[in-house]
Amino acid sequence: MRDTLVGATRFEQFGATGIADNILNSRLDLLVGESILERRRYQEHPPRHEYLLTEEGRELLPVVTALGAWGLRWTDTDAPAPVLRHLTCGTVVGLDLWCPACERIAPSRQVEVRPPWAVPDGAAAEPLPAR
Amino acid sequence: MRDTLVGATRFEQFGATGIADNILNSRLDLLVGESILERRRYQEHPPRHEYLLTEEGRELLPVVTALGAWGLRWTDTDAPAPVLRHLTCGTVVGLDLWCPACERIAPSRQVEVRPPWAVPDGAAAEPLPAR
Repeated sequence: MRDTLVGATRFEQFGATGIADNILNSRLDLLVGESILERRRYQEHPPRHEYLLTEEGRELLPVVTALGAWGLRWTDTDAPAPVLRHLTCGTVVGLDLWCPACERIAPSRQVEVRPPWAVPDGAAAEPLPAR
Repeated sequence: MRDTLVGATRFEQFGATGIADNILNSRLDLLVGESILERRRYQEHPPRHEYLLTEEGRELLPVVTALGAWGLRWTDTDAPAPVLRHLTCGTVVGLDLWCPACERIAPSRQVEVRPPWAVPDGAAAEPLPAR
């Protein structure tokens, strides 16, 4: 779920956790079965599938970010946090999804999630211009 | 975790999910090992223990409430939500912990969690007086 929320869709993009292929496969199947991911074929020969978040899946964002905030505080993880942006105003928001510009919690569907490695240094701390 | 957050501390109070005793025991051991719960003996003959949330454990509240909000929207659960109150102002808050009176997200340590069955009908929807 963490990987899908930062934009991973293909099998080989889910490997960052070192998870075994068979375990990863059974978890993807489970998430498809629960309508959290949708499986779509993107290549015929050989057949290849990608996994897209459904609306139901995307709405797990606050669960994952709350768990991430907890992990940053209580574990010795050195995994950097993703960069979250409230798309309706362009403001970068924290893991609690609180948007200081709009003075409300940003709904999951209005939040762009970018993996930290895709963002230039310092961008996470600065509000971006509205778009 | 859901049970501990509404105040369950003793083995027999964790049974609402129909979980088997041996599974429950191993989960409690795991949570104690992770410093999320603290085990304390409350009776000597025969020995009996209770399980108390640590600060680390209490701070999982936003994870559990976010998951609860998701479940209310996306599953057909009929489990009622707990009643959450921001103790510094007395206001009942929603599962996103947003306090409309203080205009901020209530920190976990300032949130009282009451199981729905402990609250009179209608109390959940009304702000309570400050205390």
